[in-house]
Amino acid sequence: MTSSNIAVIGGDGIGPEVTAEALKALTAVAGADAFNFVHYDLGAERWQRTGEVLPDSVLDELKGVDAIVLGAVGAAPGSKAIPSGLLERGLLLKLRFAFDHAVNLRPSKLYPGVPTPLAPRIVDGKTVDFVVVREGTEGLYCGNGGAVRVGTPHELATEVSVNTAYGVERVVRDAYRRAQARRGHLTLLHKHNVLVNAGSLWNRIFTEVGQEFPDVEQKYLHIDAAMIALVVDPSQFDVIVTDNLFGDIVTDLAAAVTGGIGLAASANINPTGEYPSMFEPVHGSAPDIAGQGIADPTAAISSMALLLDHLGKPELAKRIDDAVTADIEARGSEKLGTVEIGDRIAARLA
Amino acid sequence: MTSSNIAVIGGDGIGPEVTAEALKALTAVAGADAFNFVHYDLGAERWQRTGEVLPDSVLDELKGVDAIVLGAVGAAPGSKAIPSGLLERGLLLKLRFAFDHAVNLRPSKLYPGVPTPLAPRIVDGKTVDFVVVREGTEGLYCGNGGAVRVGTPHELATEVSVNTAYGVERVVRDAYRRAQARRGHLTLLHKHNVLVNAGSLWNRIFTEVGQEFPDVEQKYLHIDAAMIALVVDPSQFDVIVTDNLFGDIVTDLAAAVTGGIGLAASANINPTGEYPSMFEPVHGSAPDIAGQGIADPTAAISSMALLLDHLGKPELAKRIDDAVTADIEARGSEKLGTVEIGDRIAARLA
Ligand SMILES: CC(C)[C@H](C(=O)O)[C@@H](O)C(=O)O
Ligand SMILES: CC(C)[C@H](C(=O)O)[C@@H](O)C(=O)O
Repeated sequence: MTSSNIAVIGGDGIGPEVTAEALKALTAVAGADAFNFVHYDLGAERWQRTGEVLPDSVLDELKGVDAIVLGAVGAAPGSKAIPSGLLERGLLLKLRFAFDHAVNLRPSKLYPGVPTPLAPRIVDGKTVDFVVVREGTEGLYCGNGGAVRVGTPHELATEVSVNTAYGVERVVRDAYRRAQARRGHLTLLHKHNVLVNAGSLWNRIFTEVGQEFPDVEQKYLHIDAAMIALVVDPSQFDVIVTDNLFGDIVTDLAAAVTGGIGLAASANINPTGEYPSMFEPVHGSAPDIAGQGIADPTAAISSMALLLDHLGKPELAKRIDDAVTADIEARGSEKLGTVEIGDRIAARLA
Repeated sequence: MTSSNIAVIGGDGIGPEVTAEALKALTAVAGADAFNFVHYDLGAERWQRTGEVLPDSVLDELKGVDAIVLGAVGAAPGSKAIPSGLLERGLLLKLRFAFDHAVNLRPSKLYPGVPTPLAPRIVDGKTVDFVVVREGTEGLYCGNGGAVRVGTPHELATEVSVNTAYGVERVVRDAYRRAQARRGHLTLLHKHNVLVNAGSLWNRIFTEVGQEFPDVEQKYLHIDAAMIALVVDPSQFDVIVTDNLFGDIVTDLAAAVTGGIGLAASANINPTGEYPSMFEPVHGSAPDIAGQGIADPTAAISSMALLLDHLGKPELAKRIDDAVTADIEARGSEKLGTVEIGDRIAARLA
């Protein structure tokens, strides 16, 4: 059996800590020979040392791997040492765009026994288990904007949301397929009553592609109304499809209501397979708790199930999912350390 | 005593129903002679009858009033009878922009006894009482965008967020003043790690204006992180300032966690007084429950406290707030009709 080449970017803050546990789980489930891990030293420290964020030579190398495992990148908000967003845009978003990660997949599931901030009457007896399919290569994330008269009382700054039929169609189609393979419900989130140009495009494609999926029930919600729906009845959702920024916002809320960002996994998928897909926890680098060994690696480990699925090993993916589920249920609201959680899950997988 | 001229736009769906109760409260607290109500027949029905949304002659007339009371406008999402967003943009947003409603003020308060979707451990023993100051005349709400090759597989649709130092400064300053008059905490919500042009402008103004308010503690949160904060610890907020679209999204979540959109009041304030300000519940026209007499008029009634405050009658505003608070606490989770709630609050005010 040939082993898969996995590029590993631990990144900043708690990134390397949770990534180590993710790799531990991968090795435990698939054996030491299944993967060839190549570690890349990228992130805040490298930038501070060398002024490099993601050199072209590294980008070229990454292009050839089978998948990328990412921890987290980014300095603390308000940090003076690193310009705001430099690493997010130069590394994380750069990879999503360079490798055409059209489908940003973010499952949310409330496991039994996991403390949720929602009241018992909202979740008791209900199944909260949905997937957000977030567009990953367009919208307000294109870096298409500018500013004039910067620093003066006459400054004007713009940000442009770019949406193409091509980009919307592929992510909407992906979402319909997932809905079809799940419980058959797909919800489009947008704000078409205000963002009329982008909204009309999303609506049109949603309706057109929907005709190919007569067995999938279609629903539309304004993004603001979705905020309410996610806290008063999250069990109503099966698959959600939305644009890049709305997807960013809604998946943090989704993570929060299903027990926290420490459990939320994600995949950045290149649909054609031309480029490597990338797997990462939804959470950020959390510099406030870095180095203490207390970050929850569950999201990073769960992301490995998405990676295995993507690499065509659904049985191994399921074993990770099952081990994670069992461990989450076993630990209840007990606070465990990063390595401890990683070891417990690896033990279940061995 | 001269009476104030109030333009009343009941609008669509439950709009007229809740507005009637709001006017009842106004009359009860201030006497029948304090206000001269002029009703304007605008909204879906008028458009369907005449093809007019907001004729220039009406806009001119409205310019001269002391304040505007708005119910709600907008057809059901997905309605085929009325083009998406036609009324929202042609009436509601038109008024906000024409009358330069820079400060969209949205208080959120969790009243004792009100059912919240949050778990007891999140809210018990805590005070959840904050105000969102949402910018109302810029951002993605300018209608600045377009589309080419519409309806084809090559369609490109854009939306432009427009941010000026002038527009940001006035709303940020307003927010600092409010924070100073409250508990002294102001949080800026944005996404400056991705929306770098707009984000830098908001950051700069936030910091600059903040120097005039050394007694106000400043904090920054990414909009996605704010989603989590609002459900895991909403008591941390005092005043929030943010842009038009983030404000739209965050205030629906804020309303949801503090007992629902039926209680959320809002003011669209023209800071110079050159144009009339406008007072409305945060909720929409809710066509699904229109005509049944079951819509909660509390938000519309609370908006009248904001109106009275704005018209320089803080004692009357406080009486409305007190009556609303008392009634909310008295009713607990009992379901009451629209008129019944209006009558109960009016009785407390008489
Ligand atoms: C770090 C940031 C650029 C990123 C995003 O906005 O996409 C993060 O919030 C996420 O959700 O993956
Ligand atoms: C109806 C709609 C245009 C409006 C908005 O987006 O501002 C509403 O959601 C609100 O929050 O007042």
